[in-house]
Parts: sequence; C-alpha cells; structure tokens
Amino acid sequence: MNDEKISRTDLSELGEFGLIDHLLKDITATNPSTIKAAGDDAAVIDHKDEETLVSVDLLVEGVHFDLTYTPLKHLGYKAAVVNFSDIVAMNGTPTQIVVGIAVSNRFSIEALDELYAGIKLACQQYHVDLVGGDTTSSKSGLMLSITAIGKAKSTDIVYRSGASEHDLLCVSGDLGAAYMGLLLLEREKAAFIANPNMQPDLQGNDYILERQLKPEARIDIIEILRKNDVKPTSMIDISDGLASEILHLCKESSVGCRIYEEKIPIDIATVQAAEAFHIIPSVAALNGGEDYELLFTIKQSDFEKIQAIDGIHIIGHITAEKDEAIMISNDGQAITLRAQGWDALRTNSA
Amino acid sequence: MNDEKISRTDLSELGEFGLIDHLLKDITATNPSTIKAAGDDAAVIDHKDEETLVSVDLLVEGVHFDLTYTPLKHLGYKAAVVNFSDIVAMNGTPTQIVVGIAVSNRFSIEALDELYAGIKLACQQYHVDLVGGDTTSSKSGLMLSITAIGKAKSTDIVYRSGASEHDLLCVSGDLGAAYMGLLLLEREKAAFIANPNMQPDLQGNDYILERQLKPEARIDIIEILRKNDVKPTSMIDISDGLASEILHLCKESSVGCRIYEEKIPIDIATVQAAEAFHIIPSVAALNGGEDYELLFTIKQSDFEKIQAIDGIHIIGHITAEKDEAIMISNDGQAITLRAQGWDALRTNSA
Repeated sequence: MNDEKISRTDLSELGEFGLIDHLLKDITATNPSTIKAAGDDAAVIDHKDEETLVSVDLLVEGVHFDLTYTPLKHLGYKAAVVNFSDIVAMNGTPTQIVVGIAVSNRFSIEALDELYAGIKLACQQYHVDLVGGDTTSSKSGLMLSITAIGKAKSTDIVYRSGASEHDLLCVSGDLGAAYMGLLLLEREKAAFIANPNMQPDLQGNDYILERQLKPEARIDIIEILRKNDVKPTSMIDISDGLASEILHLCKESSVGCRIYEEKIPIDIATVQAAEAFHIIPSVAALNGGEDYELLFTIKQSDFEKIQAIDGIHIIGHITAEKDEAIMISNDGQAITLRAQGWDALRTNSA
Repeated sequence: MNDEKISRTDLSELGEFGLIDHLLKDITATNPSTIKAAGDDAAVIDHKDEETLVSVDLLVEGVHFDLTYTPLKHLGYKAAVVNFSDIVAMNGTPTQIVVGIAVSNRFSIEALDELYAGIKLACQQYHVDLVGGDTTSSKSGLMLSITAIGKAKSTDIVYRSGASEHDLLCVSGDLGAAYMGLLLLEREKAAFIANPNMQPDLQGNDYILERQLKPEARIDIIEILRKNDVKPTSMIDISDGLASEILHLCKESSVGCRIYEEKIPIDIATVQAAEAFHIIPSVAALNGGEDYELLFTIKQSDFEKIQAIDGIHIIGHITAEKDEAIMISNDGQAITLRAQGWDALRTNSA
C-alpha cells in the first residue's frame, strides 16, 4: 500500500454541466460514423448502408461490483467492454458508447477521472467513440448506465434464434476463470474484514484475477470467423454462465442440445483454483458467469473450417428436442442443464 | 382516496430474466426502422439513408422525482417524453427507446407495470418502439436510464452551434408553468407532512400541474416549421430554464443575444400561481425548468413565415458579443442572464 496523498476535489465544485464537460473534455471522435459526439441534445451517427445495433446495461455498486477490490479504472474498462461484447454477440462492430453515471458525493472528481480513464482506454483499444452521457447525483453509491452502439451489415447479423438441428455448438476461449477470480477476491475481502492487518494472498492467480477484473470482448473471434468464411447460425455472449446462455439459445431457436462435459474448455489455472475451493471446474464454467466468451452454433458443413481455428471449441450439437439441454458428464450420465447463473434480482434484493 | 386492495407481487417471484420478459411482453414494434426489438443481445435498427440520433438521461428518485406526488404512470410517461424532446431538439424524429431500471424490493411488480404503462403510452402517442432494456436491483429507491434513438436527414439536423448575428430567437408554447406546478406539489407535500389529515388543495391549478406531471415533446412544432419551410439555424429544448438554455446556445454558437422580458410567453395560470407564491413570473420562466418547449433561432428572412405560426414567440435576437446574454427588463434595465437552472449535483448532493 502507498501512503501518497491523493488529491480530492468535491463534485460540487464543478456542478452538473461542469462535471460532464470535464469528463468528456479532450475526447476526439475517430470513428468515421460519428458525425457529432458529445455537446448537443443528442449524438449523431451515420452507419450508411449498415444496420445500427443498440444495447444497454446497468451496473450498480453492491450488486454488480464491489469497490473494495475493484479499482475504478478496471471498473470503467470492464463496464465498457462487457457492452461491446453484446454488440459482438450480434456479429457486429461496436462503434460508439454513451455513459450515464449516478454518483454520491462520497466520490471525488479524481475518482470519476479514474473511472473514465478505464472507459476511455477500452474505447481506444476497441476503436469506439465515447459520444455523450449524463451525470447526476445519487443518494447512495455509484451506478453506471452504458449504452453501446454498433454496426453490422444486415446479412452479417447473427441472432440467438438461428440454430437448427445438427448444428455444432461452439465456445471461444475458456470458461469459469472469471468466477474463480471473483471467489478469490471475495475470500481475501472476508479475510481482510476479519483481520485488517493481513496482506491479500493473490500470488500466482494472475490469470483468474485478470479474467474477473479485465475481461475482453471477443471481436477477434468474429473477425477470424469472417476471414474463414464461417457465419454462425446463432450466437450469444457468455455473461451469465454457459448453462444459462445455452438455454437462451435453445429457447430462442426452439431447439434442444447435447453437450459433453469433457469438451468444455477450462484453463489449468481455473482447474487449480476450483480444486482449492472444492468446486467442480465444469460447475464454475456452467454457472459462474462473466467470461464474456462467445457461444455460437455453426452448420456441420463448417466443421473443418472451425477445427482449423485456434481458440474455438466444439462442445456439442443441436437437437430437435425443444428446450431440452442435456450434458453428458465425464462419467457418462445425462444431466439436464438448468440456469443457475447470476440473477441480480433474486440474490441481491435486500 | 380509495381503499381497494391493490395486489402486490414481489419482484423476487419473477427473477431478473422473468421481470424483463414480463415488462416487455405484448410489445409489438410498429416503426419500420425497428428490425429487431427486445430479446437478443442488442436491438437492430435501420435508418437507411438517414442519420441516427442517440440521447441518454438518468432519472433518480429523490433527485429528479418524488414518488410522494408523482404517480408511477406519469413518471414513466414523462421519463420517455423528455428524452423524445432531446431528439426533437435536433430536428429529428424519435423512433426507438431503451429503458434500464434499477429498483429496490420496496417496489412490486404491479408498481413497475404502472411505470411501464406510462412509458408504453408515451411510445404509442409518439410512434416510438420500446426495443429493450435492462432491469436490476438497487439498494435504495428507483433509478431510470432512458436511451432515446431517433432519425433525421443529415441536411435537416439542427445543432446548438448554428446561430449567427441578427438571427431571431424564438420559443414555442409558454414557460414557467412546470416550475409553478412543482412548487405547488412541494407545498402540498409539506402541508401533508405537517398534518396528515389535510386534503391537498390543488383546485383550479390543472394547467400548471399537467405541465409538471405530463409534459410533451414539441414534435408538432418541428413538423409545422418544416411544413412552412423554416429550418432553425440552432435549437435546444428547454429542460433547465430559459436562461440556462440561452447560454448553452450562445456558447456553442460563439455569439451573444438580447432578449426582452415582455416577450417571454407566460400563461395566465402561471402568472396567477407565481403571484400566489410571491415569485416574479419571468423568473419562473428563466430559471424554473422542465417546460420542454423548444428554443431556436431563425434567419431574419424567415420572420414573416414565423409570425404566421401560432404558438411561436420571438423573444429577441442574436448579437455578435460572444457569451453576452442580455435581457431588457420590463422597466428598461439591461440584465445579464446567468444560469440558475436545475443543477442536480449542486443542490442535491446529500
């Protein structure tokens, strides 16, 4: 820990208009589709002959994030990226973002600068323009509202509803790590509360911590699929755990599926952390959430093309049994998948 | 008051996905530009050869609204309409809306149904599609995040920055009524707190109450301007009081202006209410806010066209003196306008 004095400027020194001007100053729009960014009644966007995609997410302190162990810059980065992920899951390219924040006067301007530094970094990495927003006070804590805007050719858009019988079910990357990172941070927080003199024990857990604190949107995956001339038949991003997302795809496509536990990609670091927490690794993958990998289906005829791509794993196939999602476990049992993903209203309504 | 038993269903009975499904069920998109509404990772919108406009607003209980005297249906209607107003202020047509709500378990599903009934009514009146959203729990109270999407031909868009010297400054409708409605509601709330047996005294104040509780976006004004072949040189909607909005226009256009107190349109009901509250009516118009009328500038050559339109008032003209906004008062004094509009962060950071 360092004892450097951090300067603190009260939000009231700037006022509402001053604050939004301060947060959005020195932003230059670089995306050709951004006609007018912040500073008027609305942003102006021109996607020409492409479709416009819009997705919104709310992030609430104490429900979606815990500032005890989430640095504000990471929070900003993650908040932006998980919304880009929604655009990517439509097979689209994120182009603009609009950020609303409600904030109590517990936060200083310097704290909000950190939050925005993370949002701006994400925008820079993904070539997205921050084109406006709204700031207001809140009675308690911090709330973020992120609206991501993207574009896609109408023929490129992939919906959740396009899966057909015999399609192959694929996931990108690996699953469960973000959840293990969260469990680790929660454990260290509990230990710190019990004994404020203890030092957090996060050694050797870089991978699962990074997956929790700094997720990425898999725009590289949709680009490589396009390059290999594979258009998924359906797609969704994995924000709430594999099981929940599989059920969404099956429901929207009016199909069922069969997946194989042994095929679920799980990193060795995730397996080790799961063992330390006495959790079955595939349970972390199925129910953990926040991996922001892509779950998608492809036609069987694209099997060879997919096999040649690193970082994509075929975990099963689509069946005609509507809404019946079955996992064949490592010991050969057929288990019906249920959504046990994150459910903010059910678990946090206090 | 009526004693009918109102049924109350806890939010936890539906869970997060169930709740959003419930709130968005039986919504049918009617706008041709809505390709895909709710139910996927993002909404899909096609504005063809027109530009897309995006505006976001956060509304926080206890900061922007008080549920003691704001019926939830009215709140929903107003929350939608004030965002449509931002699109209209760009000389655009609102086409879609995305609504995020963070809500504590103090609210029942029936309460949220009321809120959404208001949002849906506004959408119906303005031919706007509700195309998605996000719901989550909050630790305290209700928060709404509204993203309005609209369209406009690129040649039709009007920015805040287009005013030039000699342009005429115009406002639609009348000003100050919404603020007087608010003062009246606040007075009756204070009286009720002091004596819970008293009945609210709102008789004869329909106009100012409706202006506060059920504002409208002046899409009719931009339509009639278009019909009369008048394109404003700059425009903004009056959400924070006339003075604040005039200063925004002057700043963005690098000009000044001179307005005349006697020209500010104020309804007789507003004047009467202001007198009862010992407030100068023009102060309510200049600093009150929430009228959602349009403030715009036109070329002098459009003077005769504007004169022929009911409900538009010329209140002054643009000058070359950058940022110098002067009001000539009824007694002939030159007063420098200052923004004293609503400033959520300055007045409510508690």
